[in-house]
Amino acid sequence: MKALRKLRPARGAALEPIAVPSIGPTDVLVRVRAASICGTDLHIYDWDPWSASRIRPPMTFGHEFCGVVEKIGDEVYSVKPGDFVSAEMHVNCGVCRACRTGQRHVCQNVKILGVDADGCFAEFVRIPVRNLWKVDPAIPEHYAAILDPLGNAVHAVLEGSIAGQNVVVTGAGPIGLMAIAVAKACGCSLVFATEINAHRRELAGKMGADEALDPAKSDTVARVREATEGGADVLLEMSGNSHAISQGFQMLRAGGRASLLGIPSGPVTLDLVNDVIFKGATVHGIYGRKMFETWVEMSELLKHGKLNLEPLFKERMPLEKFEDAFSLLEKGQAGKVLLFPNGSPK
Amino acid sequence: MKALRKLRPARGAALEPIAVPSIGPTDVLVRVRAASICGTDLHIYDWDPWSASRIRPPMTFGHEFCGVVEKIGDEVYSVKPGDFVSAEMHVNCGVCRACRTGQRHVCQNVKILGVDADGCFAEFVRIPVRNLWKVDPAIPEHYAAILDPLGNAVHAVLEGSIAGQNVVVTGAGPIGLMAIAVAKACGCSLVFATEINAHRRELAGKMGADEALDPAKSDTVARVREATEGGADVLLEMSGNSHAISQGFQMLRAGGRASLLGIPSGPVTLDLVNDVIFKGATVHGIYGRKMFETWVEMSELLKHGKLNLEPLFKERMPLEKFEDAFSLLEKGQAGKVLLFPNGSPK
Amino acid sequence: MKALRKLRPARGAALEPIAVPSIGPTDVLVRVRAASICGTDLHIYDWDPWSASRIRPPMTFGHEFCGVVEKIGDEVYSVKPGDFVSAEMHVNCGVCRACRTGQRHVCQNVKILGVDADGCFAEFVRIPVRNLWKVDPAIPEHYAAILDPLGNAVHAVLEGSIAGQNVVVTGAGPIGLMAIAVAKACGCSLVFATEINAHRRELAGKMGADEALDPAKSDTVARVREATEGGADVLLEMSGNSHAISQGFQMLRAGGRASLLGIPSGPVTLDLVNDVIFKGATVHGIYGRKMFETWVEMSELLKHGKLNLEPLFKERMPLEKFEDAFSLLEKGQAGKVLLFPNGSPK
Amino acid sequence: MKALRKLRPARGAALEPIAVPSIGPTDVLVRVRAASICGTDLHIYDWDPWSASRIRPPMTFGHEFCGVVEKIGDEVYSVKPGDFVSAEMHVNCGVCRACRTGQRHVCQNVKILGVDADGCFAEFVRIPVRNLWKVDPAIPEHYAAILDPLGNAVHAVLEGSIAGQNVVVTGAGPIGLMAIAVAKACGCSLVFATEINAHRRELAGKMGADEALDPAKSDTVARVREATEGGADVLLEMSGNSHAISQGFQMLRAGGRASLLGIPSGPVTLDLVNDVIFKGATVHGIYGRKMFETWVEMSELLKHGKLNLEPLFKERMPLEKFEDAFSLLEKGQAGKVLLFPNGSPK
Repeated sequence: MKALRKLRPARGAALEPIAVPSIGPTDVLVRVRAASICGTDLHIYDWDPWSASRIRPPMTFGHEFCGVVEKIGDEVYSVKPGDFVSAEMHVNCGVCRACRTGQRHVCQNVKILGVDADGCFAEFVRIPVRNLWKVDPAIPEHYAAILDPLGNAVHAVLEGSIAGQNVVVTGAGPIGLMAIAVAKACGCSLVFATEINAHRRELAGKMGADEALDPAKSDTVARVREATEGGADVLLEMSGNSHAISQGFQMLRAGGRASLLGIPSGPVTLDLVNDVIFKGATVHGIYGRKMFETWVEMSELLKHGKLNLEPLFKERMPLEKFEDAFSLLEKGQAGKVLLFPNGSPK
Repeated sequence: MKALRKLRPARGAALEPIAVPSIGPTDVLVRVRAASICGTDLHIYDWDPWSASRIRPPMTFGHEFCGVVEKIGDEVYSVKPGDFVSAEMHVNCGVCRACRTGQRHVCQNVKILGVDADGCFAEFVRIPVRNLWKVDPAIPEHYAAILDPLGNAVHAVLEGSIAGQNVVVTGAGPIGLMAIAVAKACGCSLVFATEINAHRRELAGKMGADEALDPAKSDTVARVREATEGGADVLLEMSGNSHAISQGFQMLRAGGRASLLGIPSGPVTLDLVNDVIFKGATVHGIYGRKMFETWVEMSELLKHGKLNLEPLFKERMPLEKFEDAFSLLEKGQAGKVLLFPNGSPK
Repeated sequence: MKALRKLRPARGAALEPIAVPSIGPTDVLVRVRAASICGTDLHIYDWDPWSASRIRPPMTFGHEFCGVVEKIGDEVYSVKPGDFVSAEMHVNCGVCRACRTGQRHVCQNVKILGVDADGCFAEFVRIPVRNLWKVDPAIPEHYAAILDPLGNAVHAVLEGSIAGQNVVVTGAGPIGLMAIAVAKACGCSLVFATEINAHRRELAGKMGADEALDPAKSDTVARVREATEGGADVLLEMSGNSHAISQGFQMLRAGGRASLLGIPSGPVTLDLVNDVIFKGATVHGIYGRKMFETWVEMSELLKHGKLNLEPLFKERMPLEKFEDAFSLLEKGQAGKVLLFPNGSPK
Repeated sequence: MKALRKLRPARGAALEPIAVPSIGPTDVLVRVRAASICGTDLHIYDWDPWSASRIRPPMTFGHEFCGVVEKIGDEVYSVKPGDFVSAEMHVNCGVCRACRTGQRHVCQNVKILGVDADGCFAEFVRIPVRNLWKVDPAIPEHYAAILDPLGNAVHAVLEGSIAGQNVVVTGAGPIGLMAIAVAKACGCSLVFATEINAHRRELAGKMGADEALDPAKSDTVARVREATEGGADVLLEMSGNSHAISQGFQMLRAGGRASLLGIPSGPVTLDLVNDVIFKGATVHGIYGRKMFETWVEMSELLKHGKLNLEPLFKERMPLEKFEDAFSLLEKGQAGKVLLFPNGSPK
């Protein structure tokens, strides 16, 4: 089969023929229908310092996808060939304290398929059955290809109350944009998005934000505090930018909730006293998706048509055109690019 | 009556004769039995920048006390003269969003008696009845005089699960020391205290800490991580020191809970990615006491004798000796100093 | 002014001229714009055994309304004449354990205006300011008149997770019907309503139920269990009927949540083992509205237009036609009837 | 090896020689040190209607035990021969909605070892590694043999707040008695136990109950309501008796929490209106142990010596004396009886 491989510790990747993965008794082989490119894939492609410290070439990368079950191991009973599936690519250890107490998503021994082992930028991918997720046929293929980042958004939004809450989303990259749609679908009141990029602000509006604000303007914090009579109830931090984080906390009301998902590139300086302590704020670190509470919630929202994610999708290409795909994303334009390893996109 | 007054915007205070406060229909006049000095009182006495920005002399300060009801307003039914009482000195507005949604402790319109209005360093203090707290007669007087800071500790400890949890307390000042006793009384597993001052480390042991560690030693974080097989479940941050905060988060396990109560003197730099986000940690800002959930919990713990706070008490003096009291505390020695405005201490 | 009064312990009521209520320093006088009739009012009108045990004639009844502030007491700062308002009519004591720990809605010393003291079926009603609720001008008058029962529905729906959850509503009276709309607005998945009355089943569909089922049919439980692959996540019990309660629990999945609001007329026999214990179910008794968390949530949902309650409204009449109104409701037809004590309905 | 076998569908059991179980790649073979007899084992021995409907002879029963790892499968990494262990005997399916959303303990496809497959009344027992639990060597053998029922008690107690709460335990059988000790260790205030049997009431006192009351006396409910000023905060229902359940709810305060664990033998009639709905009570069905949150909490409490369970233990016998053991228990005397399949008890 063909697979997009990281062959050596340097920028780039190559499409190579490799053997179809063999499967063990509790594994499932999936024929990949559509794969989606994550920011992490871009880092791996570019070979940034994080990649250099973690990735061990040669390996197949990619961890956002959907496909169809091709073959199942002898001890697999919950899916069968032909089933439409995706997967949670964080393979947790199952025996540590986090795994045994409902926090599998923060297992410290996690192996990520597409990062620590072969991933989904290939015709086929091998998934342990307990990580496989059956996708309802009512969910369209291109939505099913991005359950991984959508799950990040759902995890962040539903980590506390959302119905009837005023929300600030700082950062309107793909996950921030999805979070807007999810919050709206779950009955939140106003959504304010802050985003430096004008095109993304426009997208934020299309996804349902009531106001898309430029964080560089001097009255952004005041605007949100005034419109919400004292501050938003919920902060969804999606930028990883320290200025945005600081602004986000200033826009949060006393007693509010902040879900932090964006990954800062270094230490962040906070006004802990005024932003967290005196406010009695609750702050959640958001990593991955709850296994599998988030998957259940996300599936229900999707299968009943509660999320319109169309504005997110940018390009669809055969896997062979991966160089075009990566170069498109490196230009910093928002939106998800889908790769099709098995036949051309619909 | 005599009262300890801040007369002018400068260091010091003076014992002055003033009129006994008159009371309105929903007020209660309390004869102060014992008052306790808080770090905030020290700031007011010293006239630090915070005091200069907030305190409006002339005023009577002091906000930790117990006493006996002397007189009640016409519309007061829940207490009567002779009742043993203390009070929540944060007088919340009652009409803002926080007040109306179970978060009265973070009301942004709060007036603190002893800070924004006359307090308890006097023979009598006036308290609105809804802020008064009847104290069970089984609770000793010196304990009843420190319900305000004890409530801070109880609030921090009980903000999440505590039974069977391993705990780190960073900072063994009075509230940190109380938190050790409270956590132990509520069934926590191991308690590790980190504290730079050797005398306070010794007190931490007396309050029930399993290990009292010096944060300056290089192996402190490693020690806690090893003893807890990967990190403590709960961090109670009581120091306000940025090094301690950072260390505390490093000692917290993935999926753990941090309650932040200590007040840093400036911005704090955090490794948000590794300490909060990737860990999926939950962080609570802790301010004041929940009104009045914390008071109920604290009272139950005290009246059934579950807390031994004796090691905390240092000195008892008549109100007249306030200068000795403040000078003692300025030397940085831990422990609570009690002042007695009505007759000498027992 | 004119008021609808219960004059003696027997069936009926009379429109009488009485003095406009005088107000104390913390009271507000409200000119009633629209009042709505509750099932409780019907019991009072009919003088059922519950009424005989609780109501003390002569008194003005009615507890669902909206209006405009006419006059305020000397110590009222949060509203002013001309403000559009409604009120929480449960006047809690403020000093009991429930009141002091975030559970004011279950205060055991509650006095209900319109039940234990004069209510809103009159030109004017007196409300203590802490029970008054300012209504956003974006909320239409007829919606503002039914915040009391709508709050019951919101309280029941939001007592646990709702986004992405499959829901069963047993009983499609007014509160059940509102609960359907609220659950849908908050991102729930499927809603199944069970209701014996065909007209109400039709209304359930209009309010957003995916399926409105007849509880008398033999396959109702099986239908829900099949459509939800094992049972609904959430049961909202709105009927008070013991057969419906039993059916509701059978339709609940293991680990599910039941919110019980409907009031059975006598003891109820439950299969506790299979319906609650082995299922690890969580059951909440729902009474009144959380003060004032529910009011905040409800207001946000309404002011952003997330609830279409039009199908609920049946008739609007001047207060003088109260006999027609009560006779209409006694016929058991669903829907809210509004009375207008000040001028004719729009 | 020898095993206590249910050979036919009738009263009794027989000690038989059978082959030592073979193990698969993810299984562990444990040499049983001590096993404990549960009420369920008594039902199986007696062949009551429940047993007749569920048990498929021939099989080895018993599901409470501790032992030492004898042998591990090829894919087992988390334990090694010689480790001191116990096990969660509920083998959940891992793929249903409950299993995938943090509710493995209510998996509807569960197989219980000792009920649906061979159990621990034998020299050796086979356990899937994900159900095995390493026991801290600081925990004594006889405590390690009863982790299954102790876990029931811990699950019930910690299903909500316990520190500073007044508690009623209805029913002082083994799990009720354990619950008293657990609640006390976790900082609860007063514990009231109700129990018809005088000997068990005495045991309740030994386990830490402040008052052990006879439910047949007319003032039992009044006594608890008076001592708690309106009702206990927490009801732990351990009897399964409908009178006790009813009394328990009457003793619960408005806004309180009830954890129901005792298994009634038939339908139960409740005053839902006054006991649950008007009270705004929260009721939890408690089944099994949370996998593995409860195991973590229980282990921490035990290894730090917070629970004194000595009064619970009654007799220790070699497995051969099983008839004496069952006959002792059939006499209804409280306490745990331990069987030793490998050598005589210490």
